[in-house]
Amino acid sequence: MKYCELKRPELEKELADVRKQYDEKKAAGLKLDMSRGRPSPVQSDLSEELLKTVGENEDCFSEEGIDCRNYGFLKGLTELRKIFAPILGVDFEQVVACGNSTLNLMYDCVSDAYHYGVPGGKAPWGKQKVKFLCPVPGYDRHFGITQALGAEMITVPMLPTGPDMDRVEELVKDESVKGIWCVPKYSNPDGFIYSDETVKRLANMKCAAGDFRIFWDNAYAVHDLYPDPPKLLNIMEEARLSRKEDRVFIFFSTSKITFAGGGVAFFAGSEASVKNFLSHAAVRTIGYDKVNQLRHARFFGSTEAVYEQMKKHAEILRPKFELVCDTLERELAPTGTARWNRPLGGYFVGLNVKEGTASRTYTLAKEAGVTLTKVGATYPLGIDPFDSSIRIAPSAVTLPELKQAIEILCVCAKLAVLEKMTENKI
Amino acid sequence: MKYCELKRPELEKELADVRKQYDEKKAAGLKLDMSRGRPSPVQSDLSEELLKTVGENEDCFSEEGIDCRNYGFLKGLTELRKIFAPILGVDFEQVVACGNSTLNLMYDCVSDAYHYGVPGGKAPWGKQKVKFLCPVPGYDRHFGITQALGAEMITVPMLPTGPDMDRVEELVKDESVKGIWCVPKYSNPDGFIYSDETVKRLANMKCAAGDFRIFWDNAYAVHDLYPDPPKLLNIMEEARLSRKEDRVFIFFSTSKITFAGGGVAFFAGSEASVKNFLSHAAVRTIGYDKVNQLRHARFFGSTEAVYEQMKKHAEILRPKFELVCDTLERELAPTGTARWNRPLGGYFVGLNVKEGTASRTYTLAKEAGVTLTKVGATYPLGIDPFDSSIRIAPSAVTLPELKQAIEILCVCAKLAVLEKMTENKI
Repeated sequence: MKYCELKRPELEKELADVRKQYDEKKAAGLKLDMSRGRPSPVQSDLSEELLKTVGENEDCFSEEGIDCRNYGFLKGLTELRKIFAPILGVDFEQVVACGNSTLNLMYDCVSDAYHYGVPGGKAPWGKQKVKFLCPVPGYDRHFGITQALGAEMITVPMLPTGPDMDRVEELVKDESVKGIWCVPKYSNPDGFIYSDETVKRLANMKCAAGDFRIFWDNAYAVHDLYPDPPKLLNIMEEARLSRKEDRVFIFFSTSKITFAGGGVAFFAGSEASVKNFLSHAAVRTIGYDKVNQLRHARFFGSTEAVYEQMKKHAEILRPKFELVCDTLERELAPTGTARWNRPLGGYFVGLNVKEGTASRTYTLAKEAGVTLTKVGATYPLGIDPFDSSIRIAPSAVTLPELKQAIEILCVCAKLAVLEKMTENKI
Repeated sequence: MKYCELKRPELEKELADVRKQYDEKKAAGLKLDMSRGRPSPVQSDLSEELLKTVGENEDCFSEEGIDCRNYGFLKGLTELRKIFAPILGVDFEQVVACGNSTLNLMYDCVSDAYHYGVPGGKAPWGKQKVKFLCPVPGYDRHFGITQALGAEMITVPMLPTGPDMDRVEELVKDESVKGIWCVPKYSNPDGFIYSDETVKRLANMKCAAGDFRIFWDNAYAVHDLYPDPPKLLNIMEEARLSRKEDRVFIFFSTSKITFAGGGVAFFAGSEASVKNFLSHAAVRTIGYDKVNQLRHARFFGSTEAVYEQMKKHAEILRPKFELVCDTLERELAPTGTARWNRPLGGYFVGLNVKEGTASRTYTLAKEAGVTLTKVGATYPLGIDPFDSSIRIAPSAVTLPELKQAIEILCVCAKLAVLEKMTENKI
C-alpha cells in the first residue's frame, strides 16, 4: 500500500503494526556493523596465495632484477604496472605503483596542489580561492580531504548518468573551481555508471581554471557483479582527443581485489602529470613497498587473472546485493516512500528514504543493533540537506546477518516515515 | 708527509706521483655506486624468515584478533608498537606504527604544520614566516622537505657533541624559527652522538615559537657497530621534566633492520602530538599496511630480538667501516689535509677534505668509476659553502669493492689538494 494514499486511521494502524515489528526485532538484540564497505574475511581468503609468492630471499627480485627489499624505484615495479595499465586504460609508462592507499594518493595530489600548484595554474591552490565540485550523494572520504584543506565544496546532483553535466559545465566557468571528485563506475553510494556522454563532456568541457583537475577514482573498475558488465568510456582517450589529458588524475587500487589494508594503489595520468606527481613524491619517500608490489605481480601474473579473481569476489558479493535489493523491493517499494538503484557492481546500495527521515531511520536502526554509515556522510561536511540518503554496505556481514539487518532497516525506514506522517514519535 | 710543509718542487713531485696512481686506478675501469646508504643484499638476507611469518589465511590475525588484511586500526598493531616502544624511549601508547617510510612521516608532519598549524602555534605555518634549523653537515632528504615547502633554512654547525647549542639557543629566540632537524645518534654523515648536555638543552631551551618542534629522526637508534654502545639520553623524559614533551616528534623505522624498502616506520610523541598526528592521518588514509606490521611483530617477537638482529648487521658492517677509516688513516692522515670521525655505528663516514676541493674530488672519483654522494648534498639547497664535506656510504658494496673505492677516493682527495696547491689541473 502506498503510504501517501492512506487515510489517517489506516496510517495509525500501519504505524502500530510496524512499531510492533520494530519492537520484536529490537528485542532480538542484534549487533551488526554495516557502516563501511569492508570486504568480508571470505573475500580476503581468496588471496591466500599472495602471501606465499615471496617467501625466500631468492624470490625478492623483480623480472628486471631489482632487489625489491631495497630502496628506490619510485615509479614501482614495471611488471605490476603492466598488469594493471589496461585496467586503468593507459600505457604502463603512465602508471605509478605506490603504497597501500589510494586515499593517500588523492590526499597527496590535493595537498601538493595546495603547496606547489598544478601545471597550468597561476599559483599554489593555497594562495587562491579554491572550490571543488562534489557530486552528491558521494564518498565521504573524498569530501574529507577537500574539507580538511579548506576548499569550498559545491554539490552537484548525481544522476543515473553521472554528475549533472549542465550544472558542472556552468560551474567550471568560475576560475576558482579547481576540481571534481568522481567515482565513475558503480558510484559510491548509488552504483551509477557515468554515461559515454558524461565522460566526453567531462573530458572536453571548457574550464576557466587552467589547473582544473578531474579526480577519477575508478575504485570499482573491475568490481562487476554480473557477466558482460557495462563499459565505462576511457576518459584519458577522450581527453587526449582534445589535448586535455593533463586534466585527468586516475586512481585505482587492489584494496578490494586482494587485501583492503595491504594492497597496492596506483596513480595514472598524462606524461606531464606523472612527471609532476613523481617530482613531489620524491621529496616524500625514497620508494613505496616494492616487496608487496612483487607479491601482487606474482599473484596475478596477468591482467586476465585480475578479472578471474573478481569473478570469485562476485560469487560472494552477488547474493548479498540481490538480497538487499530484493528486500527493499518487497518491503519498501509498495510503500512508495523510498528509491534506490539496483547496482551491477561496486560496494554499496544507495537508499534514498523519504526526505526528512534518514536520521530517524539511522537512529532507530542503531537502537535495534544495526550500525549504518552515518547519515550525512554522503554529503560534504556531513550534512545531507534532504535528510534522505542512506548508504548500505552489504559486503562485511554474512548473508544471514545481512538478511536480519536489511529487514530491520526496512522496518526502521517505514517506522520513521509513519511517525513523520502521523507526527507521533516513540 | 704534511702537504702544508712541502716546498714547491716536493709538491710537484708528489702531484706527479699521485696523478700516476690516479691514472692507473682510472684505467682499471671500476664502476661502483656509493652514493646512498643502502644496505647490502647480505643484510636484507638476514630477514628471510620475515617473509614466512604470514603465509596462510589463519596467520593474518593479530594477538588482539584483528584481521590485518582488512581496513582500519590507524594506530597500528599493538604488539608491534610494544616491541619498538622501549627503543623509541616512550610508552607504547605514544607510538604509531605506520607505512614503510619515516621520510614520508616527516614530510607529512611538516606538510600538516603548513596546512593546519601545530598545537601551541598561532597560525598554520603556511601563513607564517618559517625558518628551520639545519645542523650541517646533515641529511639531504631532511633539507629537501623544508626546501620544497619553502622554509628558510638556517645552518648550525654540527660539533662532536651535536648541533652548536649556543647558536641554537640564540636562534630559537626568533619566533619564526619553527623546528630543527636532528639525527641524534650516529648523525648523518659524521656519526656523532648528541651529548647528554645537548639533549637536555634541546629539551629545555626557551623557544619564542609556541609551535617549535624538534624532528628527532632517531634512524640509527640501535645501529651500533660495537658492544657496549654509547647511550643517547632519552629526550622525551628530559622534555617531560620541564613539561615540554609536545616539542618532540620522534621518528624511527626498521628500514635498516629488516628491508630498506619494505619495513615499518614509527611516529612517537606526547599524548597531544599523537592525537594531532592521528587526526590528520585519518584524513589521508584508512590505515597503514597491517599485514606487513604483523610480519614484523612475528619476526621479532621481542625487543631483545631487535638487538640480536642488529648484532648480525654489525658483523657485516663493522669490517666495512673499519676498512674505510683505516684507509683514510693510512692514506690521508699523513697529508694533514682531511678530517673525519671514526663512527661507532650508523651508516656513514663524513669525510671533510681540504676546503675548496670536495667537488674536484667528487669529479675525479666519478671519472675513475666511483660515484659518491653528490657534494653539497649534506647542506641545505645542495650548497656546501666550504666545498669540503664528502659523505661515504660503505654499506652497499662488497668489502673488496669498498677497498678499491676508498683507495681511489683517497688518491682523488690527494690529487685535488695537490692540484689546488700547485694551481695545476689535469
